Amino acid sequence: MIPKEHTMTFNEPASPATLVVKVGGGADIDLDAFCDDLATLIAAGRRIVLVHGGAERTNAVATALGHPPRFLTSPSGYTSRYTDRRTLEIFTMVYAGAINKELVARLQARGVNASGLSGVDGGLWRGPRKTALRAVENGRQRIVRDSYTGRVEQVNAPLLRTLLDQGYTPVLTPPALSQAGEAINVDGDRAAAATAAALGADTLLLLSNVPGLLRDYPRSASLIPTLTAAELTLSSNDYAQGRMRIKLLGAREALAGGVRRVVIGDARRPAPISAALAGAGTTITPADQPATVTP
Amino acid sequence: MIPKEHTMTFNEPASPATLVVKVGGGADIDLDAFCDDLATLIAAGRRIVLVHGGAERTNAVATALGHPPRFLTSPSGYTSRYTDRRTLEIFTMVYAGAINKELVARLQARGVNASGLSGVDGGLWRGPRKTALRAVENGRQRIVRDSYTGRVEQVNAPLLRTLLDQGYTPVLTPPALSQAGEAINVDGDRAAAATAAALGADTLLLLSNVPGLLRDYPRSASLIPTLTAAELTLSSNDYAQGRMRIKLLGAREALAGGVRRVVIGDARRPAPISAALAGAGTTITPADQPATVTP
Repeated sequence: MIPKEHTMTFNEPASPATLVVKVGGGADIDLDAFCDDLATLIAAGRRIVLVHGGAERTNAVATALGHPPRFLTSPSGYTSRYTDRRTLEIFTMVYAGAINKELVARLQARGVNASGLSGVDGGLWRGPRKTALRAVENGRQRIVRDSYTGRVEQVNAPLLRTLLDQGYTPVLTPPALSQAGEAINVDGDRAAAATAAALGADTLLLLSNVPGLLRDYPRSASLIPTLTAAELTLSSNDYAQGRMRIKLLGAREALAGGVRRVVIGDARRPAPISAALAGAGTTITPADQPATVTP
Repeated sequence: MIPKEHTMTFNEPASPATLVVKVGGGADIDLDAFCDDLATLIAAGRRIVLVHGGAERTNAVATALGHPPRFLTSPSGYTSRYTDRRTLEIFTMVYAGAINKELVARLQARGVNASGLSGVDGGLWRGPRKTALRAVENGRQRIVRDSYTGRVEQVNAPLLRTLLDQGYTPVLTPPALSQAGEAINVDGDRAAAATAAALGADTLLLLSNVPGLLRDYPRSASLIPTLTAAELTLSSNDYAQGRMRIKLLGAREALAGGVRRVVIGDARRPAPISAALAGAGTTITPADQPATVTP
């Protein structure tokens, strides 16, 4: 009998190395420069999945619509958007509507056959909705029950592979899909990590308006250039603030899922993807590998 | 040598008959009932592509954001949304963000593996942007140059076939993609017609908050149950008002593109898709076919 792995190797040759890039939605990020870099890499044969954020713009639209953003802090200190039904609608409009299609159009204009997908499309990102969130307010815990938030547990990797194999560049965005078929707000960095793990991606880039992980925030000169997974937990507790803690959590999840390298880098610099691939920012690798990986 | 048609028949058996359904975005349409019907038909093995509108809700969001809708009337009497850059952004948020993902989630909750695509995704709907629109205002013509509107000339049918073949139900929405890679507002009924033609669809349903084509608008009893393509031009000039004129234009384009039947029907009735397939509304067929087609 042919061993199962053998058959699979024969029938399903490993896809070429995939790169998953998460880009934040900060207003100080030049998306034209970002898309130029992405288009150059794709023209050179790179297989890329893009994931994007949009928190700042969601805040602006929510405020303009008279439903200003609110945030919840969990007992362990993570901050997340309080996503009631109206917020979910606005969040979805901005992420899956405005930003996703603007990125897709920008890439199409550069000859990249981009195709946008939210996590609900084709059940791309599935996971449980947290129907009871513990939040700390004025030092007291309370339970929040009307929040449409959750976590990605399953990624529809075959759908992404089909698109990639046919020459499309998937552009992914929250919301995800709950088990009950509801749209839910999920963290984009962690969704990108789950996607990278599910695709067997070689590298995950988490690019936003930060230079990387700083030992002495916000002093740029204190950038930590390399880290191993083993050092990550320590760093997370010692140095990371706010959003960075969630990025490090995403990095840990990606490495645990088999991704060989995570780079937390700056989306604001010229050619930000190429720069991160070349080691700009904080490069995190599994404990048993050298911290420097050829780009 | 094997004739080309022979090879193609052998390698690419004709896809099962496809049904394209366009549903309007009126607030008086019960989308839960609509999705129940769609899910039943898909469970029974129907191959369906859904296209949706969203004009009413776009108007509401645009007004709430302080950018109320404006409309242009062409010299030939067609009315269209004046889509400046800000309107395009709002339009895209509502159509491709809110409504598209709500429909996809509703269908996913009913076991339908729906996947949303706007016309920019994968270059699904491509066509020229009209950089100069002629509009009539107070009886005088003027040229509008900052409108992001256009027309679908090319449909990425292979992408839709790939999704359908893998069991996904595509849920399509404007905007489309211009040749310069800009998102453009296109008419949903005509985009649905172009999609039906490109897919070689058997039937196109245009369902909205009207009973069908009325000989004596708005008297429901004056519904015209059947029409041939030849009678269509006459009817269009004689009876149709506003949106209905564009629906008839879409019907003509679909039939000219090889679609065998177009039904203009009511999305507000129970099981609206099944009802339209059974002949409720106005059924339009090519001149050389009987007006009644088995559903």
